[in-house]
Amino acid sequence: MKQHYTIHRHCHHFNWDNALEPVHVITPGERLSFEVTDASAGQLTPASTTEDLGRVDFQRVNPVNGPVYIEGAMPGDTLEVEIESFGPQDWGWTAVTPGFGLLQAQFQDPYLKIWDLKADKAEFLPGIEIPIAPFPGTIGVALPEPGPHNIVPPRKNGGNMDIKHLTKGAKLYLPVWVEGALFSVGDTHAAQGDGEVCGTAIEAPMDVQLRFKLHKKKQIYEPQFTTPGPLNTGTEGKGYFATTGYGEDLLTATKKAISFMIEHLVGHYGLSDVEAYALCSVAVDLKQSAVVDMPHYLVSAYLPLAIFK
Amino acid sequence: MKQHYTIHRHCHHFNWDNALEPVHVITPGERLSFEVTDASAGQLTPASTTEDLGRVDFQRVNPVNGPVYIEGAMPGDTLEVEIESFGPQDWGWTAVTPGFGLLQAQFQDPYLKIWDLKADKAEFLPGIEIPIAPFPGTIGVALPEPGPHNIVPPRKNGGNMDIKHLTKGAKLYLPVWVEGALFSVGDTHAAQGDGEVCGTAIEAPMDVQLRFKLHKKKQIYEPQFTTPGPLNTGTEGKGYFATTGYGEDLLTATKKAISFMIEHLVGHYGLSDVEAYALCSVAVDLKQSAVVDMPHYLVSAYLPLAIFK
Repeated sequence: MKQHYTIHRHCHHFNWDNALEPVHVITPGERLSFEVTDASAGQLTPASTTEDLGRVDFQRVNPVNGPVYIEGAMPGDTLEVEIESFGPQDWGWTAVTPGFGLLQAQFQDPYLKIWDLKADKAEFLPGIEIPIAPFPGTIGVALPEPGPHNIVPPRKNGGNMDIKHLTKGAKLYLPVWVEGALFSVGDTHAAQGDGEVCGTAIEAPMDVQLRFKLHKKKQIYEPQFTTPGPLNTGTEGKGYFATTGYGEDLLTATKKAISFMIEHLVGHYGLSDVEAYALCSVAVDLKQSAVVDMPHYLVSAYLPLAIFK
Repeated sequence: MKQHYTIHRHCHHFNWDNALEPVHVITPGERLSFEVTDASAGQLTPASTTEDLGRVDFQRVNPVNGPVYIEGAMPGDTLEVEIESFGPQDWGWTAVTPGFGLLQAQFQDPYLKIWDLKADKAEFLPGIEIPIAPFPGTIGVALPEPGPHNIVPPRKNGGNMDIKHLTKGAKLYLPVWVEGALFSVGDTHAAQGDGEVCGTAIEAPMDVQLRFKLHKKKQIYEPQFTTPGPLNTGTEGKGYFATTGYGEDLLTATKKAISFMIEHLVGHYGLSDVEAYALCSVAVDLKQSAVVDMPHYLVSAYLPLAIFK
């Protein structure tokens, strides 16, 4: 592939803000490389320990590279972002941090796992390997509302959507809200389960190559995407074990399904509670099985058995 | 396969009630066939029209065949139900009924689609075909609490879980709550998307063959299951188009994702609103992409493109 322009790791920001100066200008049809740092913005390293986690400045997490100005992009257009490829990955981390995550009431102690990502599977513990399936956790454009907007929640501009199927070959469609769109990307993940329940995936610095197209006067209101099938390459071979949770709301049902999965992982594979929680976050998929059978909802958590040797 | 005992369609009930007399007694290890009627309990036929939908008695829907008494089953045990096979399907129906379904506020008029299920794919409209992937929508055991319990919601006894991956080869694990377990099954679906958003799947009468095992003193608290991979045989070939919805709760996010999918189906394929809603119910899968990026959740609705010729 021909060499194209790179948005380097120092060209990043920590909030969505349509007043930020673009770091680069492209015309539709162009490709760009993004040298994405990890979600700790370099505060964690392959040598970090759980103690280091306590020293992370949470005002400086989840950086995104950009913003990139797309010529001709105007509110009411749609920006197409093709996920072309990912550079090699070297290392990553998964953390449980107090006050964050689906089961934060139960998991109040910090936990940090450092991953070696040099092969096509990453070892979680002996006998448990996660296939690498990289995607950008945070990808979006500027919001029309002025001022800084926290990078953490997903919104109508995309952002921290954590959609695990924005893998190679996927195309993301983003509504353009401001002139030039002001696109940014970051928070690259080497693998993740639907939901990212403990609050982090396999967080890993890596390059991302993207191609941009513009659909003039094609208006959408929230992000859409296409992704190639099959969805779960590398994890389908041995089927799935799944837990279910029912509840009067979907969140209660989700928490129960994950809690039952943690119990299963602890009971069958000898993991600690927090290891099981982290494994759910990187490998277990959350599906809404039933959303109409009132007064209860049912959520299922799917564990791919191929991750066990 | 050797002929085994059949629980015929007249041996059904409309509520979970641990006072119901068992229709049959088996020992663990045995197989049974269930001659399952459709969720309308025969009130709809291949000749039914939308007008007939208005005459359905909703006090007599979602029948389940049983209950079957499993010898030796006691509270604290786990009943394993292997989904061995399904008999041929002939016809089915999908309905939108006022006051039921995820988007009931928007869809207030009745709709009925009658399906021909004699092939391995079922035509929704010319050029749109749904692969047959049968499973029982309602499968469970009696509750410990006395009296009749409405069949509609899923609970700790299983019930109307609508888990689309309880297909051939899956194994369902149900907690036993009363002596003999008192197992029943019904509500067979020829295909469904995760969530069953319009309130019905491809509802179809069919036989189901199940095998029962008992795990003594292995206690679980809500249903669990295994299912063979790949999860979506027959719909992976062309990848997926997906919409997203974010919201301060998962239900809002889900409603938005499905509403955007309906807009897409109407705009790109010329479906009516209600046809698009019904197509979502039988073919679109709901995934929880992000459940930790507060204050927003993100739900994605996945449309398999292989259903379009």
